[in-house]
Amino acid sequence: MTDVYLNLIRSALGSKTEPNTAEALGHPESECVRLAKKIGIRQRPLVADDEYTSDLAINATRRLLAEGGIQAANIDSLIVCTQTPDLLMPGVSSAVHGSLAFPKNCYAMDINQGCAGFVYGTQLISALITSGMSERALLVNADCYSRLIRPNDLTTRVLFGDAAACCIYSTESRGLRVIYSRCYSDGLGHDSFVARNSALRVDYAHESGIHMDGPGILGFALQVVPDAIEQALADTQLSRDDIRIFAFHQANSFVIEKLAHKLRLRADQVPQNCLNLGNTVSASIPLLLQEQWGQLKRGDKIMAVGFGVGLSWGALLLEYVG
Amino acid sequence: MTDVYLNLIRSALGSKTEPNTAEALGHPESECVRLAKKIGIRQRPLVADDEYTSDLAINATRRLLAEGGIQAANIDSLIVCTQTPDLLMPGVSSAVHGSLAFPKNCYAMDINQGCAGFVYGTQLISALITSGMSERALLVNADCYSRLIRPNDLTTRVLFGDAAACCIYSTESRGLRVIYSRCYSDGLGHDSFVARNSALRVDYAHESGIHMDGPGILGFALQVVPDAIEQALADTQLSRDDIRIFAFHQANSFVIEKLAHKLRLRADQVPQNCLNLGNTVSASIPLLLQEQWGQLKRGDKIMAVGFGVGLSWGALLLEYVG
Repeated sequence: MTDVYLNLIRSALGSKTEPNTAEALGHPESECVRLAKKIGIRQRPLVADDEYTSDLAINATRRLLAEGGIQAANIDSLIVCTQTPDLLMPGVSSAVHGSLAFPKNCYAMDINQGCAGFVYGTQLISALITSGMSERALLVNADCYSRLIRPNDLTTRVLFGDAAACCIYSTESRGLRVIYSRCYSDGLGHDSFVARNSALRVDYAHESGIHMDGPGILGFALQVVPDAIEQALADTQLSRDDIRIFAFHQANSFVIEKLAHKLRLRADQVPQNCLNLGNTVSASIPLLLQEQWGQLKRGDKIMAVGFGVGLSWGALLLEYVG
Repeated sequence: MTDVYLNLIRSALGSKTEPNTAEALGHPESECVRLAKKIGIRQRPLVADDEYTSDLAINATRRLLAEGGIQAANIDSLIVCTQTPDLLMPGVSSAVHGSLAFPKNCYAMDINQGCAGFVYGTQLISALITSGMSERALLVNADCYSRLIRPNDLTTRVLFGDAAACCIYSTESRGLRVIYSRCYSDGLGHDSFVARNSALRVDYAHESGIHMDGPGILGFALQVVPDAIEQALADTQLSRDDIRIFAFHQANSFVIEKLAHKLRLRADQVPQNCLNLGNTVSASIPLLLQEQWGQLKRGDKIMAVGFGVGLSWGALLLEYVG
């Protein structure tokens, strides 16, 4: 079977910054301080009024092409993962494709996944490359959840940041080799993380915007993430000590530290970056990998785990090959 | 390389019917008669007020499972292709997953594609199966464009019908073998078929809803569809006479007959079903294949071609194996 490698990551952040302060949020000082401390998020990038997911996606992709010395003409698959598209039709991938002169002979499509979207997207691209249908593919994880946040819902507002990450995959042995991925889903949790009145279903019973059952999602994560990791380790005959980094979806520090504690991981195995980024949905894992990239040594193994809306989750095992 | 087969197709239609008559459309009789005749669409299924894409998708999937004697527990991939989801998050696949007791060990995800969505979806599932990541996968093509139609825009209103089709794929040699697929994209055509104000981008300059440059889309189809077919025939070393059926996306009879004429195809090679269904977006090709299924003979080859929003298009070659 052909090996697939994630060769390079570049990213883009919303051009505004919202600090989690009483002044910015318009909520009592004590409440904001307590929340910001608990979740470990000080500020978050947000899109400006005239900025949309397509702008973030185009910026991240343009950087990857420029800094990687890659011609768009040589990309044959362009997958954009988003839940906050500019339009229902066409997808954000169409805007990226047209803006950056991708070739017509390109499989360009949006996929809809939340915080598991990097694992889902990587699995999809691995399948395209392994099956011989693609040689060089981009995955762009891009969202602006801020456009769906109910401004008075402090518990979600303080969490989410707007960002995009663009990853290029190929069979060239450079960067991170995809060793393993496995994705999961539980539609019975459909309503525990949902954006009401966000597309075509009319729902008079609920305020429009994101509704998240925080305790429910925490309980879900503490159950399925360790299980998915155990399954991945069993499937690959590795142990926790073989893993240099657990790149958890950066939901917030509270969740990540609960997971690390439950799994008895060392602090140095669990890097975080949500302090100044917040929860950037499916871009959070590639943003973290981009930061860690410079410190990786040949042979280092990374377990990336995404979890969120759907409910969906998945585990991905990567190895740095230099 | 593993062969992939489309084993069975089932479908569901919107529970209302709108005839293309002056009375139903509220436009002058002469205009309606002229249009209905030109496009060859007499009536179209539409969703009822309380019916959404998830309902169509669940109904089609439930029928496939029941009539195919298939347990949801044995499905490991569930892909829903839609551009008219109930919600931006979670996807329609989450609703289908939860409603019909799919297993947790299931890759469940929405993809966003329009009238090329059956070819794009089949290529994705072929990759998942060929790469060994999936054994038994469903593709559900489901849309209710009627919710995005501007009621006074007669030229789009008379075209679109609301429907869903569910296909099951596996390595079991039954039904239609996937011989070949190739997908294309042209983001420069982004604005020629677009739903304004349909998700998060605010556009005060245009009326909300679908805007389609009809003549532009016709010109596009008449160019790219024959080219994609020639490419597919060249890639598979087949000739037009080797193809029993050209299953064109059922945009409307006017487009299909133009294509047949340009390609010099016999009428019996180009079945149609838009008279009573209209253009059912990415469900149109599987709906047509479902109708034709009973008349197929072992060895019959089918060229399916989708084209539309994005712009995107793709050609898929299938062979009936009994």
